[in-house]
Amino acid sequence: MNPIDFQPIFDPRSIAIVGASNDPTKFGGRTYFALKDRDYDGKLYAVNPKATDIDGEKAYASVQEIPEDVDMAIVAVAAPFVVQAIADCAAKRVRAVQILTAGFSETGSAEGVLWENQIADIARDNGMRMVGPNCFGIYSPENALTVLPGPDFPKESGPAGLMSQSGGFTSFTVRKAMGLGIRFSKAISYGNACDLNECDYLGYFEADEQTKVVGAYVEGVRDGRRFVEVAGKTSRKKPIIMWKGGLTGLGSRAVASHTASLGGSRQVWEGFFRQTGVVPAVGIDEVIDLMVGFLCLPDFMGRRVSVVSGGGAITVAASDALDPIGLSIPPFSEETRQAISALLPPSGNSVGNPLDTGPPIFLLPTVKPILEAVADSDAIDAVIVQHEVSAYMPAFVEEMAEVIPSIHDECGKPFIVTLPEPTLSSDTMDIEETRRRYRESYIRRGVPVFDTLERAVSVLGKIIRYNEFVSARKQ
Amino acid sequence: MNPIDFQPIFDPRSIAIVGASNDPTKFGGRTYFALKDRDYDGKLYAVNPKATDIDGEKAYASVQEIPEDVDMAIVAVAAPFVVQAIADCAAKRVRAVQILTAGFSETGSAEGVLWENQIADIARDNGMRMVGPNCFGIYSPENALTVLPGPDFPKESGPAGLMSQSGGFTSFTVRKAMGLGIRFSKAISYGNACDLNECDYLGYFEADEQTKVVGAYVEGVRDGRRFVEVAGKTSRKKPIIMWKGGLTGLGSRAVASHTASLGGSRQVWEGFFRQTGVVPAVGIDEVIDLMVGFLCLPDFMGRRVSVVSGGGAITVAASDALDPIGLSIPPFSEETRQAISALLPPSGNSVGNPLDTGPPIFLLPTVKPILEAVADSDAIDAVIVQHEVSAYMPAFVEEMAEVIPSIHDECGKPFIVTLPEPTLSSDTMDIEETRRRYRESYIRRGVPVFDTLERAVSVLGKIIRYNEFVSARKQ
Repeated sequence: MNPIDFQPIFDPRSIAIVGASNDPTKFGGRTYFALKDRDYDGKLYAVNPKATDIDGEKAYASVQEIPEDVDMAIVAVAAPFVVQAIADCAAKRVRAVQILTAGFSETGSAEGVLWENQIADIARDNGMRMVGPNCFGIYSPENALTVLPGPDFPKESGPAGLMSQSGGFTSFTVRKAMGLGIRFSKAISYGNACDLNECDYLGYFEADEQTKVVGAYVEGVRDGRRFVEVAGKTSRKKPIIMWKGGLTGLGSRAVASHTASLGGSRQVWEGFFRQTGVVPAVGIDEVIDLMVGFLCLPDFMGRRVSVVSGGGAITVAASDALDPIGLSIPPFSEETRQAISALLPPSGNSVGNPLDTGPPIFLLPTVKPILEAVADSDAIDAVIVQHEVSAYMPAFVEEMAEVIPSIHDECGKPFIVTLPEPTLSSDTMDIEETRRRYRESYIRRGVPVFDTLERAVSVLGKIIRYNEFVSARKQ
Repeated sequence: MNPIDFQPIFDPRSIAIVGASNDPTKFGGRTYFALKDRDYDGKLYAVNPKATDIDGEKAYASVQEIPEDVDMAIVAVAAPFVVQAIADCAAKRVRAVQILTAGFSETGSAEGVLWENQIADIARDNGMRMVGPNCFGIYSPENALTVLPGPDFPKESGPAGLMSQSGGFTSFTVRKAMGLGIRFSKAISYGNACDLNECDYLGYFEADEQTKVVGAYVEGVRDGRRFVEVAGKTSRKKPIIMWKGGLTGLGSRAVASHTASLGGSRQVWEGFFRQTGVVPAVGIDEVIDLMVGFLCLPDFMGRRVSVVSGGGAITVAASDALDPIGLSIPPFSEETRQAISALLPPSGNSVGNPLDTGPPIFLLPTVKPILEAVADSDAIDAVIVQHEVSAYMPAFVEEMAEVIPSIHDECGKPFIVTLPEPTLSSDTMDIEETRRRYRESYIRRGVPVFDTLERAVSVLGKIIRYNEFVSARKQ
């Protein structure tokens, strides 16, 4: 089999929008303006037999009328018109197609299945590669190429790869991860996968140097054996975080009507995760948490952790959460204890590991030397710090957001921060704005941040298991 | 045993602050100003032998010098001075004391244990009731009585009771729940519990008519047998949501140095939850989610659910999540299907249960009749709706926040909303502000809101189990 040429998909020199419209509330209009407004810098052609121009640019009645070569066509016409549009693309020798339109095999209707088979046949017979149908297509930041709904997808690219059978999952995950400072190499919403499928996309990410971690939402696979092989091979090189939709009886009924996928049994998928080292996750938040963790934390992390916070319940909660994942919270040496004691007020705290500083740690003028003493300890491999963003002391928190990454840079040991929302009220948006700003700043400096301790520890547990999987395979 | 008189604790006519200070950054200063600024409307006395006045009011050298009766004293002096302060309170016939000061048995030091025993003896010998030591004390909204750190604790009271060995948990939980529109009857941070303990507080909530649900953070209990009895009795009348800290080896070491509690084994506590019907939870967010669920949802809820959302992955996720907790997603009748079909565009959706409307539901002008058709269905007991708060269409979302509660009021069936954060960026705080406003508005109108589907379903599962517990005990 020839290797797949992804250039016309991720880096097309020209794009035809089939179904372009002047009305930005219509699918074809939104798609056209999405590319134009985001400064896609290749050639853009509007195809619409009922229009003479779209936004002042000439509209073509069909793809075949476009005078120059077309690398990719994005098809957004209604389902009954898609087969003809694809035939036109093939005749024009368009190299790749994204079909956003829904209404194919996922409807369960005879005509939907027939149309999908017809477009797959045309693509195969003409060597034209196809993304979709029933998808939101490609987000390729460096080329400002995206038709994902929503504003402000950055052109800055980064180390996260994303592939998903759900368009909603794709655009939601990218938008949420963006706010944490995560940037993407490519994000692919691939829907029914009637030509290119999960194996092809995963193979792309396996080979792509820029991609350091892969997030995936998968409902079903077309070729189970090949998927196990590609997933296992990729997983040895970089972590794959995968949410498998449809693992229950009700869920597998739902995937059939979403992307016409076969869900597969829970037992089979549990075996898949064990065998391939793919990291299982459920829900957008867990996928993103794991991306943050894998992107920030080193491949190998020792198991001896210190927990630092102002407040006893948090140290109790951390202890309860760390115990089952096999992390230890060893006592400090007498030397470390004395160093920390000298930096704290005489009462209201508990100098040990976990370290309860008493008042919120950002209130302590000695927070930097305290954290340095913890990080310097030979007994400790990594440090978990929980602090709040306070309404009444923002300046102190600002200092924290500088102190922790700088100690992390100096000592080389991983720091993990949990930064809970202190309030859910709509009256205190300034606190939340501050929290989000510091969170992004921490993550961009290599310090992972999680909303709660429970989420941080769940991520640590999965990362530890993944690292064990990889190192066992290397021996 | 005489019943405990909680009046001087929750509704004192006069309070002495022992350790009051002009410096609001000191514990005693913060405590004094917290009461004064929040318009506590009883008499307030400042006690500080080193000051002549506090904020323009006379300062007394000791409690005994106060010329009038003192219902409650709040003690915030350093640990070595507490025994004397308590002896003074007893001599003055102060009826109740909150000791905020830490540095007692939780330090593990001989003098800390001795002091704690001495104050417990003084209290017992004089019939003076004591909250703490090592706590943040009482939040009694109707009397504007709170020394919890942080601004803006409302005077409005409500149906949630809270009791906690951790001050941080207490103030965090109240502040976060506030933003969801939850109001409290009483919140009690009780620390080391050397006089009044978990049984006494739970007994108060059991008898209190205003309290409809009790949240609790417990590290250890003083009298296990009595606690099982009180918890079981209370649990039959109203749900108790309890986070038990220190269930692991590491955790039980941590509780010893936090509140000098004995953690107890996991097996014992699992038996406790089974036997009493107390609902187990881990972390502040889960405790609050369960409060929202119990306060909004009816005692009995049928198991046939409809899931409505724009997006296929969400319907898959809902199906996967609902299946294990024994909820069903039955098909609609042909009549319901046709009614809904007539209200939706011809493709891009999946008319069934789960109902995937295709585009986000708030974009549909027909959202109200669609949801009415779902709610009217005889096959359905409850409706779960997931929708986003969109950056680009706030007016539509505003309509949703009116539509769902009004259908809920009309049909009487429970609606459950999941309203995820669409972005984590700090650049889009207006969206988050909108989301929080609608969330509070939904909850205040009896429609529970959760951040994610996974969290909603976890709450539903626990509520169903609790309702089964109660109804089994009633037969």
